[in-house]
Amino acid sequence: MTSPINVIVWGEYRHEKRNPKVAELYPDGMHETIAAFLRKDTALSVGTATLDEPEHGLTEAVLKKTDVLIWWGHMAHGDVQDAIVERVKKRVLEGMGLVVLHSGHYAKIFKSLLGTTCSLKWREASDKERIWNILPSHPITQGIGDYFEIPAEEMYGEPFGIPAPDELLFISWFTGGEVFRSGATWYRGNGRIFYFRPGHETYPTYHQAEVQKVITNSVHWARATVRIPDTCPNSPALEPLPDDPEAHLRSKIGHK
Amino acid sequence: MTSPINVIVWGEYRHEKRNPKVAELYPDGMHETIAAFLRKDTALSVGTATLDEPEHGLTEAVLKKTDVLIWWGHMAHGDVQDAIVERVKKRVLEGMGLVVLHSGHYAKIFKSLLGTTCSLKWREASDKERIWNILPSHPITQGIGDYFEIPAEEMYGEPFGIPAPDELLFISWFTGGEVFRSGATWYRGNGRIFYFRPGHETYPTYHQAEVQKVITNSVHWARATVRIPDTCPNSPALEPLPDDPEAHLRSKIGHK
Amino acid sequence: MTSPINVIVWGEYRHEKRNPKVAELYPDGMHETIAAFLRKDTALSVGTATLDEPEHGLTEAVLKKTDVLIWWGHMAHGDVQDAIVERVKKRVLEGMGLVVLHSGHYAKIFKSLLGTTCSLKWREASDKERIWNILPSHPITQGIGDYFEIPAEEMYGEPFGIPAPDELLFISWFTGGEVFRSGATWYRGNGRIFYFRPGHETYPTYHQAEVQKVITNSVHWARATVRIPDTCPNSPALEPLPDDPEAHLRSKIGHK
Amino acid sequence: MTSPINVIVWGEYRHEKRNPKVAELYPDGMHETIAAFLRKDTALSVGTATLDEPEHGLTEAVLKKTDVLIWWGHMAHGDVQDAIVERVKKRVLEGMGLVVLHSGHYAKIFKSLLGTTCSLKWREASDKERIWNILPSHPITQGIGDYFEIPAEEMYGEPFGIPAPDELLFISWFTGGEVFRSGATWYRGNGRIFYFRPGHETYPTYHQAEVQKVITNSVHWARATVRIPDTCPNSPALEPLPDDPEAHLRSKIGHK
Repeated sequence: MTSPINVIVWGEYRHEKRNPKVAELYPDGMHETIAAFLRKDTALSVGTATLDEPEHGLTEAVLKKTDVLIWWGHMAHGDVQDAIVERVKKRVLEGMGLVVLHSGHYAKIFKSLLGTTCSLKWREASDKERIWNILPSHPITQGIGDYFEIPAEEMYGEPFGIPAPDELLFISWFTGGEVFRSGATWYRGNGRIFYFRPGHETYPTYHQAEVQKVITNSVHWARATVRIPDTCPNSPALEPLPDDPEAHLRSKIGHK
Repeated sequence: MTSPINVIVWGEYRHEKRNPKVAELYPDGMHETIAAFLRKDTALSVGTATLDEPEHGLTEAVLKKTDVLIWWGHMAHGDVQDAIVERVKKRVLEGMGLVVLHSGHYAKIFKSLLGTTCSLKWREASDKERIWNILPSHPITQGIGDYFEIPAEEMYGEPFGIPAPDELLFISWFTGGEVFRSGATWYRGNGRIFYFRPGHETYPTYHQAEVQKVITNSVHWARATVRIPDTCPNSPALEPLPDDPEAHLRSKIGHK
Repeated sequence: MTSPINVIVWGEYRHEKRNPKVAELYPDGMHETIAAFLRKDTALSVGTATLDEPEHGLTEAVLKKTDVLIWWGHMAHGDVQDAIVERVKKRVLEGMGLVVLHSGHYAKIFKSLLGTTCSLKWREASDKERIWNILPSHPITQGIGDYFEIPAEEMYGEPFGIPAPDELLFISWFTGGEVFRSGATWYRGNGRIFYFRPGHETYPTYHQAEVQKVITNSVHWARATVRIPDTCPNSPALEPLPDDPEAHLRSKIGHK
Repeated sequence: MTSPINVIVWGEYRHEKRNPKVAELYPDGMHETIAAFLRKDTALSVGTATLDEPEHGLTEAVLKKTDVLIWWGHMAHGDVQDAIVERVKKRVLEGMGLVVLHSGHYAKIFKSLLGTTCSLKWREASDKERIWNILPSHPITQGIGDYFEIPAEEMYGEPFGIPAPDELLFISWFTGGEVFRSGATWYRGNGRIFYFRPGHETYPTYHQAEVQKVITNSVHWARATVRIPDTCPNSPALEPLPDDPEAHLRSKIGHK
């Protein structure tokens, strides 16, 4: 029997406490709504963590056993401690999966792993979003047809300041006239990263079946299958080397 | 008449002052050797900068007019100030080219732009390195035949902890039995990045014609052609939107 | 002084003879309209070729001196001789640039170089097309702002049956609700390929300034800089080999 | 319970009948040796097919139920019928996996899917080959350490005339001084392609455990998970379109 995939849903959990509209949509926080639909998948073991917990709920012990981390943040990216970002990044590069949602495009962890601005156009005006599936053979797009629609969402528009994705899965059409690469993957180190655009806090997006399906699929796809610590080893030769009469002159300074 | 390409060769310039072997090979510093061969190309206007200058020689004014920055560092990566790294990164993402040499694989600026460990295997044992040209149509490989050899170099071996390159130009064969992706490019933001492996400080690598040819080519390839500042604009709709009866309920917190 | 870039604009040139609407828009054929705007660029030397010429106008002599071939075909893809397709493909792989327009997505030469179905959704209903520039630093997108619009065009929609582009430059938004990767590049062999979506024969698309700008830019980008014939050489060892006592037993059958 | 992965090992099966050395190594043909080790994996259901069977053993009925096709050919690529190549290609683009071995780099099916020359350097001189694992997190490289060695093999050297791989898994070091991208994947249509270099007919390569491990892993990775037939549909609009007063003038010629 296969062991379950350990998932942590990380939520900033601030909008829900300040904005009654958001609280009405997500009474226990967006992270709990996401965790709840993931728990319907018996292959997953799902926990949560939030910004205002000690160490943002992302202790070494928690991360050590996490296979996939889901990240939603927006108004408080700056409050995430740099040391915790480094800890998460290290785990991703060792092999943990990372699913970044919506406004997480500006999360420190996402920008740090991608290395670019991650900027975009935006508008809060209840555009209809139609998300086209452009890679129907990918594990993340299974069960999604040619497209699905979100009745009202914040608009994100191109250009999106990301490195070219390793796989481009979804492109969104918006009523107001924009397009966006709304589902994309990157392989970084030994980990897999999936960015999925939908999920502005003032809309019931995470209650929608297709959105839940994509996120659930992405957890399976991103699950850690290896854990490879970083090393930079001095490696002896595997084949005979030429004589090196000047070896004694070599620098002993600045070795890695 | 075309304006010249403004190049800054940045050198850590520490090994040269401490290790007589290095000083003998590069009496004015490695950066001056590199600048000297670049100056033979009349299309280039070449300056230098070093770690121990104020702001590491990389002031806002200098970077503003720089089209390509070449980076060599090794023993003192940690002494480069984070604020200067951010400044350089911002310029690369706006459009400046960046050529990272040898041990610069561990430079803060390289790791920050790529987002991965950038680790590798290494050995200082005077392996012969044969550098194979696997992309003979690329601007950077012009004038290089099927391969060229460096008689003695530090070995770098795979796996190399980088994101998959956008273009893989060179693969090295080492006497001791290893291989390495020794020339690769990444497009990040509006800038172009080239990593080129050779150049350990205790060898006369930067005096070798083929190495000089590759670096010179790379400067032409990486030159800035645009300067696009980062923005994340609120964008009005280009097409009629559906009515939004709940607009007044929208969050006013946490806007970008 | 730099020698000019030799461009051949290949047109199927059949719609123009059968459909009065098309003839009105392109009285001398679409290829002549395209050639005419390219000729305003003094760096280019522009000729044309059409399906019903001997060897479709693409003799060995013509191709030998061509740096970039532009291809527009639609109703008569099947009439293009396989031998000519192979000849063009050989030249692209040696280094010639290829710009494929609109319905050329189903041209034999495009399908043969990409290896996939190149299928898509389509609709002739005068959608407005808004073409978003998602790679503003690329040579092909220079002089194009964030986007431009074509007032009426045939719709092409995703999924588009192509290999992941090496560079994705444009994504189109259509009134009817679809999106499309409408500008993309592939590096194949030593040649560069650019696909550009707009240009249905019943619209004045090739008279529009932005479309002309993109095609002109693409010719500069795709120009041949090398000509490397295909070889598969038996190569002597560069380093001493181990003894091979069984060498005489080796197969002499089936060598390349 | 999961249904088995249906695998067909296709062998040219000619060298084995003509060259006693090859027959000694592979008495029932190379395809049977490969099939035999795959059959140890109870998740796989393995059959074989060879060139001299009717339709090369690749009837519509066989392909319809095949999840992964493994291909080894060398001296008789030209004897493979074009119609069968098209049939296999169609199945790959629908979703079937394809694993191409060694001299299969020049098989019609491989060249047709990749679109390039697929040429390389070669030498039959019993080089030692050391295969470096450069993507240790990939499903195909699991159970393989940093590298493994093949005591004697034909050399294949760069440049290899392929499109940039979607994933580069292995790079080979050869005694004689060359390097080669010896394990690479491409996603084409809905199918997955893996090329694996080792396996010259005069060496016992397919009896080696590491080689068997890689091929077995690749079958799991490449297995068909979808079957999506090619279509190019005329698609009605999903959103209201502008009036089209000239609709009656539209071309009725040349529709797809």
